[in-house]
Amino acid sequence: MTVYFEDLDEGDVMEFGTYEVTAAEIVEFAERYDPQWFHTDPERARQQSHFGALAASGWHTCAMAMRLVVDGHYRDAAGLGAAGIEHLRWPNPTVPGDELSVRVAVLETRRSESDPSRGLVTLDQTVSNQDDEVKAEMRPTVLYQCRSAPEDA
Amino acid sequence: MTVYFEDLDEGDVMEFGTYEVTAAEIVEFAERYDPQWFHTDPERARQQSHFGALAASGWHTCAMAMRLVVDGHYRDAAGLGAAGIEHLRWPNPTVPGDELSVRVAVLETRRSESDPSRGLVTLDQTVSNQDDEVKAEMRPTVLYQCRSAPEDA
Repeated sequence: MTVYFEDLDEGDVMEFGTYEVTAAEIVEFAERYDPQWFHTDPERARQQSHFGALAASGWHTCAMAMRLVVDGHYRDAAGLGAAGIEHLRWPNPTVPGDELSVRVAVLETRRSESDPSRGLVTLDQTVSNQDDEVKAEMRPTVLYQCRSAPEDA
Repeated sequence: MTVYFEDLDEGDVMEFGTYEVTAAEIVEFAERYDPQWFHTDPERARQQSHFGALAASGWHTCAMAMRLVVDGHYRDAAGLGAAGIEHLRWPNPTVPGDELSVRVAVLETRRSESDPSRGLVTLDQTVSNQDDEVKAEMRPTVLYQCRSAPEDA
């Protein structure tokens, strides 16, 4: 049951989760890719950072959310990757103990003019924790294979 | 020599690099956070994907670029994290053998109205490889501590 471009309609909503965030994983990711002290030093982060807690790298929050969406959707969808993201915000820090979930709403679908075997789908994605605190919001445009492409028909 | 808000001026340009991209790291990151086949299966990606090669997760490209900017800038800067990103695009896939570098241009600086001990800096960041092929472009707004905050003066 692969999900193709034609299977996605404006207004569709999908929800995926949860991902349990640990201090160990926050530090591990940050030491490799974003070694700023408020991502790598739990004690100093608690005492000195404006977050008041160890905060995950914003890229780590996006990566954890991606894993939820891949497990819940892209494993069985003809997705071809994202072309880009219109905006991306981190209104609150992701902290140890957060249980992340992702809400994906289909904002717009349009068949590609340059290659009608593909379609472009713009999504509103919201990453929240168990208390509905929003950790990330983004509007990606993702390429999908069409089921009935002119050249395959 | 910590870089504070006041040390950044519109038009400043910084360049950081390089980061060597390997197939092993692309697969390792993707298996954990973005297990879509064109990120995890080198042979199938070469033969079947529209990228024509194993492609890094877009989040991985952002993470590798972040590491370059942290090593070259944020380790010695009073950065407090990014509030958000205005747009983010991946015009070309990041592939094994890429040597990534990042160009950061200061687009706009403004002191925070709600907290004048901090400033907001909007940056244009371009991630390219050794052939000047652009792999990611983004416009983040980053919070910096001010050197001469009213309450510290």
